[in-house]
Amino acid sequence: MSYTLKQLAEHLDSKMSGGVKLHGDTDIVINGVATIGDATHGQITFVTSNKHRDSLRSTSASAVIIRNELLADTSVPALIVDNPRAAFAHVVEFFNPVSPVSAGIHPSAIIDPTANISATASIGANTVIEANVEIADAVQIDPGCVVGRNSRIGMGTHLLANVSVYHDCDIGESCILHSSSVIGSDGFGFEFYQGEWLKIPQVGGVTIGNKVEIGACSVVDRGALNNTVIEDGVKLDNHVQIAHNVKVGEHTVMSRGVGVAGSSVIGKNCIIAGMVGIKDNIEITDNVIITAMTMVTSSIKQPGSYSSPTPMDNTKSWRKNCIRFKQLDDMAKQIRQLKKIIENNT
Amino acid sequence: MSYTLKQLAEHLDSKMSGGVKLHGDTDIVINGVATIGDATHGQITFVTSNKHRDSLRSTSASAVIIRNELLADTSVPALIVDNPRAAFAHVVEFFNPVSPVSAGIHPSAIIDPTANISATASIGANTVIEANVEIADAVQIDPGCVVGRNSRIGMGTHLLANVSVYHDCDIGESCILHSSSVIGSDGFGFEFYQGEWLKIPQVGGVTIGNKVEIGACSVVDRGALNNTVIEDGVKLDNHVQIAHNVKVGEHTVMSRGVGVAGSSVIGKNCIIAGMVGIKDNIEITDNVIITAMTMVTSSIKQPGSYSSPTPMDNTKSWRKNCIRFKQLDDMAKQIRQLKKIIENNT
Amino acid sequence: MSYTLKQLAEHLDSKMSGGVKLHGDTDIVINGVATIGDATHGQITFVTSNKHRDSLRSTSASAVIIRNELLADTSVPALIVDNPRAAFAHVVEFFNPVSPVSAGIHPSAIIDPTANISATASIGANTVIEANVEIADAVQIDPGCVVGRNSRIGMGTHLLANVSVYHDCDIGESCILHSSSVIGSDGFGFEFYQGEWLKIPQVGGVTIGNKVEIGACSVVDRGALNNTVIEDGVKLDNHVQIAHNVKVGEHTVMSRGVGVAGSSVIGKNCIIAGMVGIKDNIEITDNVIITAMTMVTSSIKQPGSYSSPTPMDNTKSWRKNCIRFKQLDDMAKQIRQLKKIIENNT
Repeated sequence: MSYTLKQLAEHLDSKMSGGVKLHGDTDIVINGVATIGDATHGQITFVTSNKHRDSLRSTSASAVIIRNELLADTSVPALIVDNPRAAFAHVVEFFNPVSPVSAGIHPSAIIDPTANISATASIGANTVIEANVEIADAVQIDPGCVVGRNSRIGMGTHLLANVSVYHDCDIGESCILHSSSVIGSDGFGFEFYQGEWLKIPQVGGVTIGNKVEIGACSVVDRGALNNTVIEDGVKLDNHVQIAHNVKVGEHTVMSRGVGVAGSSVIGKNCIIAGMVGIKDNIEITDNVIITAMTMVTSSIKQPGSYSSPTPMDNTKSWRKNCIRFKQLDDMAKQIRQLKKIIENNT
Repeated sequence: MSYTLKQLAEHLDSKMSGGVKLHGDTDIVINGVATIGDATHGQITFVTSNKHRDSLRSTSASAVIIRNELLADTSVPALIVDNPRAAFAHVVEFFNPVSPVSAGIHPSAIIDPTANISATASIGANTVIEANVEIADAVQIDPGCVVGRNSRIGMGTHLLANVSVYHDCDIGESCILHSSSVIGSDGFGFEFYQGEWLKIPQVGGVTIGNKVEIGACSVVDRGALNNTVIEDGVKLDNHVQIAHNVKVGEHTVMSRGVGVAGSSVIGKNCIIAGMVGIKDNIEITDNVIITAMTMVTSSIKQPGSYSSPTPMDNTKSWRKNCIRFKQLDDMAKQIRQLKKIIENNT
Repeated sequence: MSYTLKQLAEHLDSKMSGGVKLHGDTDIVINGVATIGDATHGQITFVTSNKHRDSLRSTSASAVIIRNELLADTSVPALIVDNPRAAFAHVVEFFNPVSPVSAGIHPSAIIDPTANISATASIGANTVIEANVEIADAVQIDPGCVVGRNSRIGMGTHLLANVSVYHDCDIGESCILHSSSVIGSDGFGFEFYQGEWLKIPQVGGVTIGNKVEIGACSVVDRGALNNTVIEDGVKLDNHVQIAHNVKVGEHTVMSRGVGVAGSSVIGKNCIIAGMVGIKDNIEITDNVIITAMTMVTSSIKQPGSYSSPTPMDNTKSWRKNCIRFKQLDDMAKQIRQLKKIIENNT
């Protein structure tokens, strides 16, 4: 598969705000993509920031995708765009078109007769579709998935192998659910009564919007009474947990291992880094950034960046400082006392 | 589905310690359940604490479940019980009876001829039951599960879709195992020898008691020589890890993401919050509470509440304090020096 | 199954550096293995350290595996080796030989006609093997697995139930992949553009070396352009995440819940304890130890041990110290001021 730089520009033009400007030999032939460090003759690469100016100057790539301000730093043909990484993403896709999966139901799939499956959907081997499920056009469900009764999978959504969707879950269009992810498992609700934990029935469902991606081994629990809600454009990495009745606002991203406890409401356009823990019943406003491994125990009302964990040190120093951490309140009191003594003395 | 308040009271009476007292119009018809904030005409709700007095006064619900002391605050018919949340749980279940699954083995399930499956059990599509497995009465195994040789599933236990149970695992009665959970995987045991990690064979099993719930994507490793043990009434949320030879005492609950390392012994009635990490080979006594994201590196011999992580701050302040954290031992020494100087001067 | 001590010594001899020395009655019959605390008549156990001298003296085991220096402390027959735990591992395996799985493809497995499966491989019930997959000799794939197109599974590798391997993944020889683990899921790559997160296509693959073990519910994401790489002898516990384009060096072990973010490079022979989080795009040199729940946000260039989390305390004291943590920078400044005042006064 190979294209001239001009053909790439034409492909990109409609996808980029402000289009694409061509620079240099537009007939040069490009047959692949690579990172700035790896790119060799015949490949196209991209540079996003001025920091990579030197790499840009010395690249062996045959063409580059850059912002206008880096034009002086390149000696090879270039595509000038407003966002080189976005343009590169489109070019990578152009060189790696997703293999079209043929529509139809694999003979080994087990489909309940009351399920309603589009003729353009693809249902993989050994997948199980239960009663009253609705599968829209162009849905792709890979082998080994189970979709519970009354659930609905929207147009163009892709379930990778071994995904489990429980009953009464609603998944929007153009979503991607990775392997071993679970949608609609019971929220963790119990009441200690008469000497044991009484299960609170979890009879709500799950509502997932459009263009949502859910990582491998991630879990979205169903609501207790109302639905757990994930809005359009949310991206969840692997091992993420969304507890019952949580609401995640549009275009919020959560990196690997984030846990959101019950009934918390996360705003739009938030960026929540890896292994952050978010308490139950709190609210996080829009446009909040939370750095890795932070513990969020109260609501966040102001946009901004928030953090909590302590920094890494060599274990020997760390041990000493840990002992002091447990004396911190004492240390603060000693400082106050010293201050008083000094003030009295002078 | 609808009931009079009196019918609800009758249903609840035997389930509540001290029974149910009716207050107000007992013939009022209830057709659903909702939270105090959402409840409208025809619905019943509940209030647990005095904090929600205002909501109780202004609710649009047709009936409420409350403790006796809140009776003065309600103008709608009420059920008076000792634990409104527990009563509400029973009412929710009453309005949402679990769909009875028909007994029998789906024709696509693969059952080893030596497996012993009760006639009242339900085995879902594409589930695989290996040699010498025992499946008791009223067990429900959903599609895509695999139960390894010699394992036993007790009466009334429910495996949701795509659960994996390895060989020689013993699961009690009335348990719930959520999707993608894994029971009996090898403990993480290796010895560095002759330049590589030699695998320590993991030939113990897993013993899970009755009324245990195990969350989605949670893992209980098998023991190295003896069994890993989870006692009756334990509730594990999603993404929990129980390592080899751990013992978890009765009615202990662990929230999402907790990890318990090898051979540790957790007491009864403990509450372990989300993303807590517990070291190997330690003991935690009964009735211990561990708050979220705590690192437990030594045994806990006294009941009580324990914590470790640092609190969230805005990232700018946090950065400054992080630098200081690495100077903590120095700061403590400086305070001591200042103290000495001042003592010598006065 | 029972052996004389002499037979055990013969079995072990070639496996241990420096062989095995016998001590005491070599004709004693051993019929099982147990820990030093549990071992009874007829069983063999082991002791690794001088700390267990007392247990060794009082053991009811019929034989022990020890280092030469503990010989004076045992009154029962002994096998003398350089590494008792390694020797014991071999003995445990000897007493618990892995049940041979018969080669062949279960009739319910779905095999693409273009897949190339060794006649000595075993493919379990309801497993799905897609186009152009290569399955080498003596591979065992348990029920419910899915191996995507063009992937390759090396000789003697074992996939437990419900493992998902995506397309174009290369898994070496003698690996073990536990249930619900996922190999080759998309890396978490997005660019915010035109008001939403544009997916960066993840068109790299995964390369896993030989003798790698991957825990239950662990995930190895595929690379964006190049491959994610896990070298020979790496052992990953459960719930571990290896992000796109990470490289993990030979014989590195990661305990439960570790997360390594994109493009980071981990050296050889590292020991990374449970729930450690490692930032993207950093480098960790060889022979690094990282203790549990540490956050690694910068490269580690020196071998050694590193740590970060704060220690556990009772919740009441912890709360006080947490308040002070947020005042740490202030406290440091106050100490400096006090110092100045004192210096000026003296």
